[in-house]
Amino acid sequence: MGAYAPGVRNQNTLRMKALQFDTKLQLVQVEIPHAAPSQAIVRPTLAGICNTDLELVKGYMGFTGVLGHEFVGVVAESEDSALAGQRVCGEINFGCGACDFCRKGLARHCPNRTVLGILNQNGAFAEQVAMPVENLRPIPDNVSDEAAVFVEPLAAAFEILEQVKIEPAQKVAVVGDGKLGLLICQVLKLTGCDLTLIGKHENKLGLAAKWGLKTITKGNEPARAYDVVVEASGAAAGFATALSMLKPRGTLVLKSTYAGDLQLNAAPIVIDEISIIGSRCGQFEPAIRALAHGLVNAEDLIEQTYPFDRALAAFAHAGRPGVLKILLKFDA
Amino acid sequence: MGAYAPGVRNQNTLRMKALQFDTKLQLVQVEIPHAAPSQAIVRPTLAGICNTDLELVKGYMGFTGVLGHEFVGVVAESEDSALAGQRVCGEINFGCGACDFCRKGLARHCPNRTVLGILNQNGAFAEQVAMPVENLRPIPDNVSDEAAVFVEPLAAAFEILEQVKIEPAQKVAVVGDGKLGLLICQVLKLTGCDLTLIGKHENKLGLAAKWGLKTITKGNEPARAYDVVVEASGAAAGFATALSMLKPRGTLVLKSTYAGDLQLNAAPIVIDEISIIGSRCGQFEPAIRALAHGLVNAEDLIEQTYPFDRALAAFAHAGRPGVLKILLKFDA
Repeated sequence: MGAYAPGVRNQNTLRMKALQFDTKLQLVQVEIPHAAPSQAIVRPTLAGICNTDLELVKGYMGFTGVLGHEFVGVVAESEDSALAGQRVCGEINFGCGACDFCRKGLARHCPNRTVLGILNQNGAFAEQVAMPVENLRPIPDNVSDEAAVFVEPLAAAFEILEQVKIEPAQKVAVVGDGKLGLLICQVLKLTGCDLTLIGKHENKLGLAAKWGLKTITKGNEPARAYDVVVEASGAAAGFATALSMLKPRGTLVLKSTYAGDLQLNAAPIVIDEISIIGSRCGQFEPAIRALAHGLVNAEDLIEQTYPFDRALAAFAHAGRPGVLKILLKFDA
Repeated sequence: MGAYAPGVRNQNTLRMKALQFDTKLQLVQVEIPHAAPSQAIVRPTLAGICNTDLELVKGYMGFTGVLGHEFVGVVAESEDSALAGQRVCGEINFGCGACDFCRKGLARHCPNRTVLGILNQNGAFAEQVAMPVENLRPIPDNVSDEAAVFVEPLAAAFEILEQVKIEPAQKVAVVGDGKLGLLICQVLKLTGCDLTLIGKHENKLGLAAKWGLKTITKGNEPARAYDVVVEASGAAAGFATALSMLKPRGTLVLKSTYAGDLQLNAAPIVIDEISIIGSRCGQFEPAIRALAHGLVNAEDLIEQTYPFDRALAAFAHAGRPGVLKILLKFDA
């Protein structure tokens, strides 16, 4: 692993800068990736730091390698000449292409999958990243890089609508005013539902209010009042809160994972016939369309943009409580 | 509370025999119930002892009063003369009739409901029981009392199909070979799905095999193999087993309640996008139709029938491990 030389872009060399996690997080020089058959090489333009990245650095999933799964970039090399120079985002689950899930278009549940920057696959916090061509999604010209970098988490928000039918007249709450919770609010708002955000940060609740949503400060949420509650707080305590807020026959969408176990009494789930739906990654197309149609204001969620050379400072910033999205900008 | 005189049917007196739980379970003489406006008086013919009854006697729900919620009987008194003499079963949830749930035909989720023999409502282990007329369901002539007495638990089995779309090509497993698990097997079999019962009692697995189902002895169930798993084991350990058996995007139907809490790691539920659906009481009509059409063989589940005078012995028998349905037969 070479020493890192700030400011040097290895445009035409065999090495590149990458933000790597092994036992610690560091900017290093690594070999550039090689495109396997049916892969392309993408140069990220802008990348986002996700809570999952912060968890990975704490040891979640036992991941080592180049981090990064939220990005927009430009195709640098591809067998398909129409792709070269194209601005793209990339679906992060690399399926085997042969299993039942892949054949149904559900590569994100392929049992043999790797996941960009999360599971056995080097990620996009690097000057170049190898991506399967079939995972690339062109970004329309009217979607800025600053919006397109939110496509991956926005797709995860749209995943809720792939899984759960939310009716326009229903009462819906989102528990957790983090970055994902706020994106989920913007997506669920599109259903016309009666939507409330439960949070604890004045600035974030203020954003939701600016978007025209109801907000309730954590601790004041009503019991048995909602048809659907999305748990996006990232804390185990959020589960019990979300459950208590549901009407009988209500649906709890679990959108965040916790370190450690959850303790719960199953009897109320049976008696009230509650549905609990785990929800993870989504398809990119609806997210891209929503941005192109101006239906989601992703830029509101940007806290600060750091040059890639300052990625370690960016990570430290992203880990501070209450911070919105921290972006990494690559040299042009 | 009067002393109990075995063998005396109080046909035309103001007192009747009833199986009552207070601090202990006993056959006592109590006042006959009076029909409130829009109620009828039903004389049970045959009643079933449910696992819930066994739990109530251990203190579940803090219930005191006359037990019994599975029964078939004859209408003895009703303002509606067409009902008098009619053979009926009765839906056990008595709704307020005015709330949102009752207006949607979901009295079984009415927040103000009482529940026959379970919650603030004397039950059907008595010579007479007062029932709202709207809860009564006529039983077709071709359905025997021995079948009709299973309508309530069979409705609970059909409830799964009200909540979850089970596709004919899906792999489905039922965990738990108790009475409810076996009824669920008979109902889910009707979907054409590829159905397996996981159990531990040779006699019960034998019944399922006789019905043409696959069976697996507990401990040998495969991992990540089923689209839908119904947890009907009545034991907390069944939850983790059921979860491990699901494919990604699979559905876990929680059909049994546990004393105490459940510990679980939420991350796999999110990563595999599992759905967990609590499921309780169901509508009676589908259950009655299934019996009338000969689609369900309820009589296979009868272990033994006791005269009501021997209700205490019947309860003791019902509490023995591996026992199928114990019925109580009332004097004609």
